[in-house]
Amino acid sequence: MTANIRVTIWNEYRHERRSPEVAKIYPEGIHGTLAKALSEKGFTVRTATLDEPEHGLTDEVLENTDVMIWWGHMAHPEVRDEIVQKVYQRVLDGMGLVVLHSGHFSKIFKKLLGTDCDLKWRETNDKERLWVVAPGHPITEGIGDYIELEHEEMYGEPFGIPTPETLVFVSWFTGGEVFRSGCCYTRGQGKIFYFRPGHETLPTYHNPEIQLVISNAVRWANPTATRKLIRGNTPALEK
Amino acid sequence: MTANIRVTIWNEYRHERRSPEVAKIYPEGIHGTLAKALSEKGFTVRTATLDEPEHGLTDEVLENTDVMIWWGHMAHPEVRDEIVQKVYQRVLDGMGLVVLHSGHFSKIFKKLLGTDCDLKWRETNDKERLWVVAPGHPITEGIGDYIELEHEEMYGEPFGIPTPETLVFVSWFTGGEVFRSGCCYTRGQGKIFYFRPGHETLPTYHNPEIQLVISNAVRWANPTATRKLIRGNTPALEK
Amino acid sequence: MTANIRVTIWNEYRHERRSPEVAKIYPEGIHGTLAKALSEKGFTVRTATLDEPEHGLTDEVLENTDVMIWWGHMAHPEVRDEIVQKVYQRVLDGMGLVVLHSGHFSKIFKKLLGTDCDLKWRETNDKERLWVVAPGHPITEGIGDYIELEHEEMYGEPFGIPTPETLVFVSWFTGGEVFRSGCCYTRGQGKIFYFRPGHETLPTYHNPEIQLVISNAVRWANPTATRKLIRGNTPALEK
Amino acid sequence: MTANIRVTIWNEYRHERRSPEVAKIYPEGIHGTLAKALSEKGFTVRTATLDEPEHGLTDEVLENTDVMIWWGHMAHPEVRDEIVQKVYQRVLDGMGLVVLHSGHFSKIFKKLLGTDCDLKWRETNDKERLWVVAPGHPITEGIGDYIELEHEEMYGEPFGIPTPETLVFVSWFTGGEVFRSGCCYTRGQGKIFYFRPGHETLPTYHNPEIQLVISNAVRWANPTATRKLIRGNTPALEK
Repeated sequence: MTANIRVTIWNEYRHERRSPEVAKIYPEGIHGTLAKALSEKGFTVRTATLDEPEHGLTDEVLENTDVMIWWGHMAHPEVRDEIVQKVYQRVLDGMGLVVLHSGHFSKIFKKLLGTDCDLKWRETNDKERLWVVAPGHPITEGIGDYIELEHEEMYGEPFGIPTPETLVFVSWFTGGEVFRSGCCYTRGQGKIFYFRPGHETLPTYHNPEIQLVISNAVRWANPTATRKLIRGNTPALEK
Repeated sequence: MTANIRVTIWNEYRHERRSPEVAKIYPEGIHGTLAKALSEKGFTVRTATLDEPEHGLTDEVLENTDVMIWWGHMAHPEVRDEIVQKVYQRVLDGMGLVVLHSGHFSKIFKKLLGTDCDLKWRETNDKERLWVVAPGHPITEGIGDYIELEHEEMYGEPFGIPTPETLVFVSWFTGGEVFRSGCCYTRGQGKIFYFRPGHETLPTYHNPEIQLVISNAVRWANPTATRKLIRGNTPALEK
Repeated sequence: MTANIRVTIWNEYRHERRSPEVAKIYPEGIHGTLAKALSEKGFTVRTATLDEPEHGLTDEVLENTDVMIWWGHMAHPEVRDEIVQKVYQRVLDGMGLVVLHSGHFSKIFKKLLGTDCDLKWRETNDKERLWVVAPGHPITEGIGDYIELEHEEMYGEPFGIPTPETLVFVSWFTGGEVFRSGCCYTRGQGKIFYFRPGHETLPTYHNPEIQLVISNAVRWANPTATRKLIRGNTPALEK
Repeated sequence: MTANIRVTIWNEYRHERRSPEVAKIYPEGIHGTLAKALSEKGFTVRTATLDEPEHGLTDEVLENTDVMIWWGHMAHPEVRDEIVQKVYQRVLDGMGLVVLHSGHFSKIFKKLLGTDCDLKWRETNDKERLWVVAPGHPITEGIGDYIELEHEEMYGEPFGIPTPETLVFVSWFTGGEVFRSGCCYTRGQGKIFYFRPGHETLPTYHNPEIQLVISNAVRWANPTATRKLIRGNTPALEK
């Protein structure tokens, strides 16, 4: 079944090309690291990046994507509105979306959530613990009581999001903050999962537990029951 | 307390000026009818309409509005994006918002909800019954088991909205449809209530029960605990 | 995968043995009809009834059940509290539970929901339409815009339940009422789905669409990520 | 308005009478400390304790209580089921309920929530920070970014509760855990707030911010729109 899930990993792919520090950690880009991990788990994976034509998100790519993964940070404003609109429509029509880390400020995430998605942050190598608060949820399959990340950027509350339909992870940081780190939403027929960790200067996406959560999220967000909706002017039904 | 709640009723105010049929029902506009009703209940009321400068929504008006009521239909695209952005920011900062009937397709509602807000509809004088499904909720205060409207436009499911935080009313229509007619949301520090009835060719807003629900909703949406949020780069806390 | 889901269909099985009218519709009991339907769809099915020892719900049966279906009506008080407690614990540990029709008043449903689950009802052959309000939800797979049942008992709001995590169906009845007919909950690691239709004097469970919803619900409620929880007195973690 | 809210503070009142250490902190009982604080804020307050006849919760007391506060710990099993049933019914009928700290394991809380309410804990003087994650919510009025408690018992996830309708606070503990510390629910017409802090050996309930949250919660849980529900066998409505 996993093999039938077609994943498109979208990455801004700027930090990796500009910063030798980041390039050392993700020599083939964050998308490359995730593509390798998800391919090995059996998904059908492709990647797309900001500087490709149409940001790599042509109609053909979008039509053939079951779940999209989104990483962006420094170039959110450069993502063209008409591409955002197409991704948005695909989510409403059923495509799953997994938004990672600094993707919280992406146009597509804010458009789907309806809020500013703002937060606290700090780059000083806090330790992070992501506690499972929804045991039994498929996104937590194979994960223990919590995930520990020796170093991560801190994100702190109040996180400017609507109340998640399901809150899956809550993070603890050494510096004293907490954060809603794993949040599930439905928009239209599409499922959305936000997953916090993944600062570009840290090897978080090489972590097998983080890769496991992302692959669980892809399976969870895979559309299974999409349909053409009947809307507009409709006659009265028979009595 | 009611007297301290400053309400701005925003109305597109086009149907009333173009259609004698509508003008007969709402000679001073839908906003005029609602302004009278809410004033009599003790609220501090002002109105604003599309064709005023800045759609009547200057910074001064927005800053001095606790709860905004929104009715629009034929001219949604004419509402300028920068005004929508200001209303949006005010909601995130705590201003309440009560969206009526065809306002489901307004820019501000879709922007705050993150979905297309599409639905079925039919203009053939169905009877509507709005059933209370959240008894005890303050928006239902003074309302019986249900509200009956002899004639209303039908709106039918599937309504393209995120799952309401609280579903307050569900409508039954003669023609065989149902609709989630009273829906509560929080976005940022602001509360939002969508209330279905109110087709411009029908005297719905003269109905005392409909006026009561709207005034209850204004009281419910009135901000009481807004604050300046601490976000951005923040140092670690003391151990 | 379906073959690996072990379903136990629990039925009170009193109406069918006492009423010739009911027996004619369900000669092998409601559980028999559902067992046949689910077996044909490939599930591993067993049944259990009130008048068997331990109501048919021995520890061995419970341990080997992934999803339980529950139908009861006239004999709710006869279900022994210690059996209810075991079913309850199994749900918290991850077993799925699909509660049908008059099971809304069963001990197990009220215990898991925390409310009285009361409602309106009427037995006069209303027509029922179950509208899909959560398109894209796996429980709606294969179902059109709505399901129509020519005759069903009416259930009406206000239904005494907590706000569903996801509301999947809303019913319309000829007599003028609406009802939240398909409701999803999580309790502990277990998923619960309440599905309204199924009066014993009507052939509802022979309806292929109703059977489809029930089988979808079983797949949805099947536990996939259960775990042993770490609770109680725990030492501080390493810094 | 506050003066019209009739609060009954229920306390097990055993630790204070058995342990000199606890008695030193709460010489008049935890209920006495809270009663003083709430009276000074203008509420109409009475108290009730386990060892009074009917645990102090006579029909007369229950009928005249708008919001009940509940603290219990070592003697949960001694609370009689018929009293629990009466409190439960009053909540469904609209009475507010604020459950404090170890009250998570009380019969009334588990009965209303439908889960086991289990958790991790540790008594070694962790520091606790309660972060506001629902800014704008009335329960947070007057509270800053977070509340800091120099010493508190740790409670850790996974907390065995249904997803809160609104999650208001999330706690951080020095020892590395997080906890959903302020949780809102509706059951029937009644509002419920669970608030974590308040170990008997620590002066938490003397803390003005903790007192402020509790008084905000009482105002939030005060019933405003309760009604007699129409249920049971009902005739069809007019077309």
